[in-house]
Amino acid sequence: MGLTQNYDNLPMNWVGDWAGRRAVLTPRRTALYDSFTKENYTFQEMNDRACRVGTYLTDVLGLRKGDVITLICRNRIESIDLYLACGKLGIILAPLSQRLKKPELDDLMARLQPGILFHENQFAELVSTLSVPPSVQSVINIDDDQSIFENVILKTDPREVNIPLAMNDRCLYVHTGGTTATPKICIVPYRQMVWNSFDILATGLVGLYKKVLITFPFFHIGGWNTFTPLFHAGVTSVLMREFNAGLVLELIHEGHIENFGAVEAMLQFLIAHPKFGETDFSQLKTITTAAAPCSKAVMQTFLDKGVPISQTYGMTEAGPSNCAYIARSDSFEELLANSASIGASMFHCDAKIIDQESGNEVKPGEVGVLCLRSPHNFDGYLHDSERTRKIINQDSWVYTGDLAMQDQNGLMFIKGRADNMFISGGENISPEEIEHALMKHPAVAGAICAGAPDPKWGQAPVALVMFHAGQNITEDELKVFCRDLLAGYKIPKHIRPVTELPLTGAGKLNRQAVVTMFS
Amino acid sequence: MGLTQNYDNLPMNWVGDWAGRRAVLTPRRTALYDSFTKENYTFQEMNDRACRVGTYLTDVLGLRKGDVITLICRNRIESIDLYLACGKLGIILAPLSQRLKKPELDDLMARLQPGILFHENQFAELVSTLSVPPSVQSVINIDDDQSIFENVILKTDPREVNIPLAMNDRCLYVHTGGTTATPKICIVPYRQMVWNSFDILATGLVGLYKKVLITFPFFHIGGWNTFTPLFHAGVTSVLMREFNAGLVLELIHEGHIENFGAVEAMLQFLIAHPKFGETDFSQLKTITTAAAPCSKAVMQTFLDKGVPISQTYGMTEAGPSNCAYIARSDSFEELLANSASIGASMFHCDAKIIDQESGNEVKPGEVGVLCLRSPHNFDGYLHDSERTRKIINQDSWVYTGDLAMQDQNGLMFIKGRADNMFISGGENISPEEIEHALMKHPAVAGAICAGAPDPKWGQAPVALVMFHAGQNITEDELKVFCRDLLAGYKIPKHIRPVTELPLTGAGKLNRQAVVTMFS
Repeated sequence: MGLTQNYDNLPMNWVGDWAGRRAVLTPRRTALYDSFTKENYTFQEMNDRACRVGTYLTDVLGLRKGDVITLICRNRIESIDLYLACGKLGIILAPLSQRLKKPELDDLMARLQPGILFHENQFAELVSTLSVPPSVQSVINIDDDQSIFENVILKTDPREVNIPLAMNDRCLYVHTGGTTATPKICIVPYRQMVWNSFDILATGLVGLYKKVLITFPFFHIGGWNTFTPLFHAGVTSVLMREFNAGLVLELIHEGHIENFGAVEAMLQFLIAHPKFGETDFSQLKTITTAAAPCSKAVMQTFLDKGVPISQTYGMTEAGPSNCAYIARSDSFEELLANSASIGASMFHCDAKIIDQESGNEVKPGEVGVLCLRSPHNFDGYLHDSERTRKIINQDSWVYTGDLAMQDQNGLMFIKGRADNMFISGGENISPEEIEHALMKHPAVAGAICAGAPDPKWGQAPVALVMFHAGQNITEDELKVFCRDLLAGYKIPKHIRPVTELPLTGAGKLNRQAVVTMFS
Repeated sequence: MGLTQNYDNLPMNWVGDWAGRRAVLTPRRTALYDSFTKENYTFQEMNDRACRVGTYLTDVLGLRKGDVITLICRNRIESIDLYLACGKLGIILAPLSQRLKKPELDDLMARLQPGILFHENQFAELVSTLSVPPSVQSVINIDDDQSIFENVILKTDPREVNIPLAMNDRCLYVHTGGTTATPKICIVPYRQMVWNSFDILATGLVGLYKKVLITFPFFHIGGWNTFTPLFHAGVTSVLMREFNAGLVLELIHEGHIENFGAVEAMLQFLIAHPKFGETDFSQLKTITTAAAPCSKAVMQTFLDKGVPISQTYGMTEAGPSNCAYIARSDSFEELLANSASIGASMFHCDAKIIDQESGNEVKPGEVGVLCLRSPHNFDGYLHDSERTRKIINQDSWVYTGDLAMQDQNGLMFIKGRADNMFISGGENISPEEIEHALMKHPAVAGAICAGAPDPKWGQAPVALVMFHAGQNITEDELKVFCRDLLAGYKIPKHIRPVTELPLTGAGKLNRQAVVTMFS
């Protein structure tokens, strides 16, 4: 009969050689605009750089397929050079966040066993404090006085270093989480990066633009997940060393960018910047938000400038892009009405919302845990099969831990974290849902909710609220207000006013403190 | 360590459910404009139709995953309905060409063992002559007086019939070839259709357009290979029941299409049509040619209308799309200069040009056989492992049988068929190359070349030429002319003038007749 092969395990020349492919297909097109140096680089130039870096990595440093290099660096062209060069050789890039502290970095490096540590000069002091593992042959400062990257690495005589790689070969090691437990290191194969890019291309989030700003750092998957589909589709990436509201507004004003992704805080920084009012937004076509819904107020400010905003959703382990809201009309009313929706799962990504207890899918309108499945699933956590097993099951469904609800039109809404959920009289309650309801009252500036021990229901919702200055309403008034928004069993049994909400060390809402207060 | 799975064998909901995915992502966008009925259909409407057809196929006709349906029909919306419905159920669609004769159709159906034969009313007589195999439960005329498709199938109460499919499940059975041997039936898995679409999307051949005309018939892969990437990316397909030059010009004039694919003959029909001169080409952005290079004369005619033309290349077994010329500038001179080039292999497709004897890669500038490798390889010929083994090797390289040459810039040129090649004094010679050289002489209207037995060299090139009316030059003059174009051993030993070139029954150049003449 047929001869079906496992193409994910078949080494092919193109798999990691994104630079080489683009250099052949669209050599003269602009691949990158570096807003720091104000220089443009064509795809051919990027490939030439990647060949030189790759030649240095293998011929001078002796690195081979499967070796790991770490990088402590802001978003620089050198980060991209290393990424593209690693792709040619099957070397695994493990970017590390410069925001982490010595113990965290030491722990990550001990687990990664890198062969080389590259870093930017401004992190030299941080790097000098690290307990570098013996696997590290060299620590390379890329931009100190000697400028080894520019003067030596990029001056290497280039040769064609590309080797065939399989889709299941490893591309990146990306660390995530870490506020409550040891950071996890995600194994990101080429399969994940390629398929995620496909999902973004086919769903229609990239092909429409000619130049897109990268706002997310390269030590998160978000940075690579912006760059990769752009490079893949031959679109110009606009590079910024780190987020800078004034610079973003300048780039918008000068017509350098047609789209960018952002978390809401970035948009708030833009709005608060003195240049915001005089910025010409006519070349900016859309903004895509991630991580959390954009508030209607922020959205309205950009809609007033003629720039539509819509939401995306994803997680490193399953995506990094999994869902997107695709506007169904040109109407800004539609966007505002659906501002809280993450849309639907992308073309090649299965999504289901399950009951946490039974594992069965819930009906439209009901809240459950969002699970995702696609060929852009990650390949597990490095050296941590126990945590891997907890997040991905035998049928390849990734358990996001996010509570979600799908409406009758197929639009999905994130309702909070499953970890925060509590049970009252057999009913699942998400504290975030109650907090959002309380926040809808004009007098309420902030709210926190949790499930406190209750003799009758096991647990019952209780809440603390913070009022806007000069405003104050009674507990009963708030409960009455909630009746139009929440089922009876979700209305907090007790609501206490506070001047400050309890926070964890990491600045997140501390719901455990609320439980303690009411116990 | 990691948990790498074989995602190509993992059943997922989205794999065949293109209609359902698009209906969720972009429900209101126009999926199809049927130029015959002048009706538009949204993605939601196409999904609704596919759900009804799918429900009928499974609930009424009792078809299941892996069953086969055949279809003898021009390019109608009903063909697309069946394709999309089959995708939901894992039923394999096997379109048959209405141009085939009874013995060919009987043979194909005996091998396909279809459960149902759908046909258009205008092929009822042809169908009535066929020896339908016992596997066929029903022969369904879709558009006779009873209009069963419209009145019954599309009136079926729809239900969600989609089942999870794996990328390696079978999507289409497509017959190819057949002029010199039994037609082959290509096994086309979803993996092939999805990856081919990715290659077209990432290489940049689709995302730029909002509406594209389907010119190729659905009984070849070319029709589905136009439709599938368009539907995938949410672009409007414009449907035409069969190629009609006047209609194409009307659609161009009315701004219904921004791009279409064509073989050169179609473009010649357009140019020859009385409406050509008055057609407004301002909305047509590009034309993509396939199968053979477009002559400079035809290309120039469209360039004069402001419409760039560039070439693509592919074969059912390896693509169907494998190579494309992507313009490197806005200059029409560039296109004319490279009019004979098929460009480079697409992003996710490996290409190599090998020496037929040694199997080693040849150097740039040398002619060899083009081989291709990508995840959009087909899965072999149905029930014909022997022919399968001849075309795809253990490393998954597909042997195209086409002679190709790559220049220093990475651009590839097709030089003929390896089957036609002969050896003279140890040198490989492609008769097509010599024919092209002879054709460059302004007096020559046609040429045919072959390798005739030669006592000294084993074989030696000989040729027949046909002159333009009233023109005539000597054999020696032609040989001198060839000296600037061909290496000495390629210059024909004998050149004879003829009034007609010898052709095969199928209308192709009959080089064997030339060999006989000179033997």
